[in-house]
Amino acid sequence: MSRDICIYQEFLTDAHKGQIQETAEKLGFIPHFFTLDQFEEAKDCLQSCEVLYAHSVDMLRSAPVSLKWYCCSFAGVDPYCKDPAIFANPDCILTNSNVYGVTIAEHVVMVTLMLLRRMPEYEEVVRNHSWSNQLPIRSIRDNEFTILGTGNIGVNVAERVRGMGAAKIIGLSRSGRPHPAFDEVHPIADLDKVLPDTKILVMALPGTADTVHILNRERIALLPKDAYVINVGRGTAIEQEPLMAALNEGRLAGAALDVMDPEPLPKDHPLWTTKNLILTPHVSGNMTLGYTCDLNVKMFCQDLANYAAGRPLNSLVDRKRGY
Amino acid sequence: MSRDICIYQEFLTDAHKGQIQETAEKLGFIPHFFTLDQFEEAKDCLQSCEVLYAHSVDMLRSAPVSLKWYCCSFAGVDPYCKDPAIFANPDCILTNSNVYGVTIAEHVVMVTLMLLRRMPEYEEVVRNHSWSNQLPIRSIRDNEFTILGTGNIGVNVAERVRGMGAAKIIGLSRSGRPHPAFDEVHPIADLDKVLPDTKILVMALPGTADTVHILNRERIALLPKDAYVINVGRGTAIEQEPLMAALNEGRLAGAALDVMDPEPLPKDHPLWTTKNLILTPHVSGNMTLGYTCDLNVKMFCQDLANYAAGRPLNSLVDRKRGY
Repeated sequence: MSRDICIYQEFLTDAHKGQIQETAEKLGFIPHFFTLDQFEEAKDCLQSCEVLYAHSVDMLRSAPVSLKWYCCSFAGVDPYCKDPAIFANPDCILTNSNVYGVTIAEHVVMVTLMLLRRMPEYEEVVRNHSWSNQLPIRSIRDNEFTILGTGNIGVNVAERVRGMGAAKIIGLSRSGRPHPAFDEVHPIADLDKVLPDTKILVMALPGTADTVHILNRERIALLPKDAYVINVGRGTAIEQEPLMAALNEGRLAGAALDVMDPEPLPKDHPLWTTKNLILTPHVSGNMTLGYTCDLNVKMFCQDLANYAAGRPLNSLVDRKRGY
Repeated sequence: MSRDICIYQEFLTDAHKGQIQETAEKLGFIPHFFTLDQFEEAKDCLQSCEVLYAHSVDMLRSAPVSLKWYCCSFAGVDPYCKDPAIFANPDCILTNSNVYGVTIAEHVVMVTLMLLRRMPEYEEVVRNHSWSNQLPIRSIRDNEFTILGTGNIGVNVAERVRGMGAAKIIGLSRSGRPHPAFDEVHPIADLDKVLPDTKILVMALPGTADTVHILNRERIALLPKDAYVINVGRGTAIEQEPLMAALNEGRLAGAALDVMDPEPLPKDHPLWTTKNLILTPHVSGNMTLGYTCDLNVKMFCQDLANYAAGRPLNSLVDRKRGY
C-alpha cells in the first residue's frame, strides 16, 4: 500500500515541489499537490493520505480518521487547537512552521524605527507638500526592549536590535529560562513588575487561552507615557479599547499593530483612526518572502524524514497547550 | 588677553553647556553661548573670538580676519567650501561634525525595509480602511547593498545591514581602499561596472564638485529594473528628471530620498507625486536625537583640546576638496 501525502498549498514553486517529491520518494511516500482552487480534488485525495501539509481548517475538517500527521505551514495554530473535534483522529500529530522569525523581525525593526523617528507625522508633512524637519526623534541605539515571547520571532527581533546598539533587551517567557539573545528573561508571571520600566514592548505570543488580553486595561496603565507597543503575535493578546484610549489621550507614545481583533478589521472600527498608531493588515509574516517559503519546505522535508524514521518531529505542537 | 569662543547653537542642553564650559576653562578659553534668535549679539561677540562653533553661513560671513577655527556642527560643509571668500581669514581652519552616522543609518534601514516590504502601498490600503496582504515583499537578509561613500554614514549602514543578514555589501570610495565593514570597496571611478549588478544603492556622499549628478541619466539607466535607490547625502548627487521618469515608468523598483534639489522642495515640484518614491524633508540626520547632540559636543571638546595643544584636529576638512 502506498503512503500518500496531500499537499494543499499556494506558495510552492516548481523547485519546492521537486524538493518535496525527491525527499518523499526516498522515504517511500507519494506527494499529491493541489492549489487552493482545487479544494474538492484535494479533499478526495486526502481520504487515502496519512499526511496533510496545508493551512486550512476546512481541509483538516475533511480529513479521515486515518490521518496521522497534519503539518501546518503557518506558525500560529490556534485555529486547530481551540476545538479538538476538528481532528477526526484524536491522536493526529500536529506540527507548525516556525519560519517567520526573519520576516516578522524585519517588520518589527521597520515599525519601531517608524515610531521612534515620527515617520507617520513626516509622511503627513510630505502628503501636504510642505517642509518641516525638527520633530524630536529617538534611536534604537541605547534604547531598551521588552520582548513578550522568546520564541523564533522574539529571538530574531532581539538579535537585530542588539546589532543596532540596543542597550538592554529583556525577554518574557512562560518558564523565564535564560536565553543568550536576551540580557534577562523573566517568567510572564512577572509581567506587572517589568511593564513600568518598559520603553518598547514587542509582543510575539501565540494565541492561546493564557494569552488572551494579556495586555489588559490594568497593564496598559502600568506602561510609561513615553512607551511604545508593537504586536505581531495575535490581536486577542491586547484589550483594544483601553489601548485606543491610551493612544488617543497621549498616555502612550505610540503603537504598531500588525494583528488585531477581529481580522479583517471592519470598515468602521475605531482602530483605523486611533492616534499615533501604525496599522498593517497582518502582513509581517506573510508567505511572499522567498526565504520564508524555502525554509517552510525545508522544515517539512526534515520532519518528513523524522516521521518516516519514527523519530520525534522538530516542530511538534502540544495540541492541549496550543503551541 | 582672553581667548574667546563664540557658540551659536540651538540644540545645546544645560548639561552640554556645562561640559563645554568646563573643558574650555581648563584649556584657558571663555565660551560665549547664543541661541539662533541672538544673531546680532553673537555677531558682536564674534568680533573678538578666535573660535566659532555654529552652523551658519551668515555668522561665518560676519567673522573677523582673526577667526582661526570654525567648527561646523553639521557633517556637510559644502556651503562653506564653494566660495573661499566666505572666510575673512583665508587660513581659517574648518572642521565638521561626523556624528550623524547612527541616526542616518537608522533612517536608511527604515526606508530600505519600507521599500522592500511595500509599506507605502500597505499604508494606502490602511488609509482606505481596507484589507489586502499578499504583495510580494523582499528582505534585507540575503540581499545585496552597494554603498556609495564609505565614511561614517556608509560604515554605520553597512554594519546594520550586515547584522540583519545582508549577503554582500560593496562600498565605493574615491580611493577604493579596503574597509572591514565592506566585502569589497571599489574606486568610484568603477561605478559604471558596479551599477548593473546593484540591488540596493545607498548614496551617502558629501556635496562637492565631483559628486554633482554622479548618478546621472546614463547611470540610472545602468541600474536593474528591480533596484532601489536611497539618497541621504546631497540632493545634487542625483539627476532628478531621469530618476523621476525611471520611477514613474517602472524602470526602477523604488527610491527613498531624504535630500533633494532644491530644499525645501517647491510645493508644485514633480518629485512630490513621483511613483514608488518615499520622500522625507531632510530629517535623517537631524539634531533632535540626544545621541547625536551628545557626540557633537564631545567631538567639539576633543578638538578644542587638540586645538589648544597645537595638535592636528580630528575633524579637519580640506577646504579645497570639500570634505
